[in-house]
Amino acid sequence: MITVSIIGTGNVAWHLAKCLSAKAGIHLKQIIGRNGDTLAQFSEFAPCTADISSQQIVDVLIIAVSDTAIAQIPKQIKDGHQLVVHTSGSMPMNALEPLVNRGVFYPLQTFSKGFAVDWSNIPLCLEVFQEEHQVLLLKLASAIGNEVHFINSKEREKLHLAAVFVNNFGNHLLAYAEKICEEGNLDFSLLQPLAEETVKKAFVLGSENAQTGPAKRGDTISLKKHLTLLKDKDQINTYKELTNYILKKYGRKEL
Amino acid sequence: MITVSIIGTGNVAWHLAKCLSAKAGIHLKQIIGRNGDTLAQFSEFAPCTADISSQQIVDVLIIAVSDTAIAQIPKQIKDGHQLVVHTSGSMPMNALEPLVNRGVFYPLQTFSKGFAVDWSNIPLCLEVFQEEHQVLLLKLASAIGNEVHFINSKEREKLHLAAVFVNNFGNHLLAYAEKICEEGNLDFSLLQPLAEETVKKAFVLGSENAQTGPAKRGDTISLKKHLTLLKDKDQINTYKELTNYILKKYGRKEL
Repeated sequence: MITVSIIGTGNVAWHLAKCLSAKAGIHLKQIIGRNGDTLAQFSEFAPCTADISSQQIVDVLIIAVSDTAIAQIPKQIKDGHQLVVHTSGSMPMNALEPLVNRGVFYPLQTFSKGFAVDWSNIPLCLEVFQEEHQVLLLKLASAIGNEVHFINSKEREKLHLAAVFVNNFGNHLLAYAEKICEEGNLDFSLLQPLAEETVKKAFVLGSENAQTGPAKRGDTISLKKHLTLLKDKDQINTYKELTNYILKKYGRKEL
Repeated sequence: MITVSIIGTGNVAWHLAKCLSAKAGIHLKQIIGRNGDTLAQFSEFAPCTADISSQQIVDVLIIAVSDTAIAQIPKQIKDGHQLVVHTSGSMPMNALEPLVNRGVFYPLQTFSKGFAVDWSNIPLCLEVFQEEHQVLLLKLASAIGNEVHFINSKEREKLHLAAVFVNNFGNHLLAYAEKICEEGNLDFSLLQPLAEETVKKAFVLGSENAQTGPAKRGDTISLKKHLTLLKDKDQINTYKELTNYILKKYGRKEL
C-alpha cells in the first residue's frame, strides 16, 4: 500500500485525486488546499484540509500547485515524507530545494476539471533526486498509467516547450478556425475529422511528410485569395506569418 | 449502377479511385491523366488513359486535378455526361463554366497516396448547379461515406480557409514541436496523446474553454523563460506572435 497526499486544488490535482482515490494499492490520505470553495470539489476523493500544518506523513506527497506557488511549499513540508514531488513541466526538480527527498511526477497532458482523461495513455515523466526513490515513484506511476518515462529537468523543460506549440498554440489555431466557421454559419464539427487526421499523419508519417496545402505548393494565387477572405487583423497576420514560414521552409519566395 | 470516371492522378484522385473501384453499385469506368508514371499507379482500380479525347460518357465525371488546372478541363469535356464535378475546396462551382451540368464533390480531408483514410468519417461537401442533379450526387456520396452536406461555393471557400488553419498551420506547429524534440533527443511520440486530446477538447468543450497555458494565464515568467530556451529564429518569432495573440485575446498585456 502506498500512502499519498496532494497539495493543490487545480486541474491536475483534481484528476490525480480522482484517479488515485479509486486505485487499489493506493491510499489517498489528504487533499490540502488554501481555497475552501475549490477544496470542496475534492471531498468525494479524500479528507480535505485548508491547514497545511495538519499534514499527515505519507510515502509520496504530490505538490500540484501553479508554477509560481511551488517555491512557497518546501518550507511548509514536515520532515518524514518518504518522497515529495511536484507535477510541473517547466519547473526544475530543484525548485523543491532544500528538500532532499524530492522528485517530479509530470503527466504530459492537458487537464480540465470534469473533462475525463484516459490515464492509461498519458506519458508520466518522472525524476528523482535520490536513486533510492526510483522504485517507489515507478510503482506509483505504474499504478496510474502505462506510459512511464524517467526524464530529467533539462529534457522536461524542452518537452514542455514543445507541448506549448502542440496544445496552447494548436488550440489557438483551432479557435481561429472555429471563428471562421461561426462567421460563415458553418458547423465547426465539419473540421473534426480533418483535425484528427492532421495529428495522426504528423505522428505516423512525420510532420515533414505530412505537410500539404497552398503554402507548401507555393500556390500564391490561393494564398492571396485566402487573405482577401479574412477580415480579422490577427487572423490575417497569423495567416501571413505562418504561410511565410512554410514558404521559406520549402524554399519558396515569401508573400 | 452509377458509372463514374476520374480525371486527375493526384492524392484525392488516388483515394477516390481506390474507394470507388471497390463499391457495389458503382462502376469506375476510366481514369484519365496526363502523366503516364502516376497513371500507372491507378491501373489496379480501372482502365487508364492519357488521352482525354477517348473519354467514355458516364453518369458522374469527377475532375480531381489541381486548382490551377481546372480551368483547362471544361473545353475538353464531351457532351453527354450527366454530371461533371470538381473536388476543390477553394474553387467555385462556376470554375466549370460553360458546362451546365456542373457540381462539386469536395471531401474535407487531407490525403496522401498510400496513407489509408476512413471515408465513413469524411465530410463530403456537395453542390450542384441544376437541382435535378441533387439526387444523383447524393446517391454517389452516400455510397462512399456517411457525412454528406450540401454546401455552396461561398461557404465552401470559408470552410477551406478554416481547414488551412487546422491542417496546414496545425501541422506546421507540430513540425516545430518535432524539431524541438529532435534537438533534445526526446521521442516526438510522447506528445501524441496531448495532440489528440487538444483536438478532442476543442471540439467537445469549444476552443475558447479548452485554451490553457502560460499565455492564457498571463504567466510572463514562464513565457520569457521559454523564449530563452528557443534558438531557431522562426520558432522564436512564432512563439512570440502566437503568445501575443493569446495574451491580447484574454485581455492581458503583450510581451
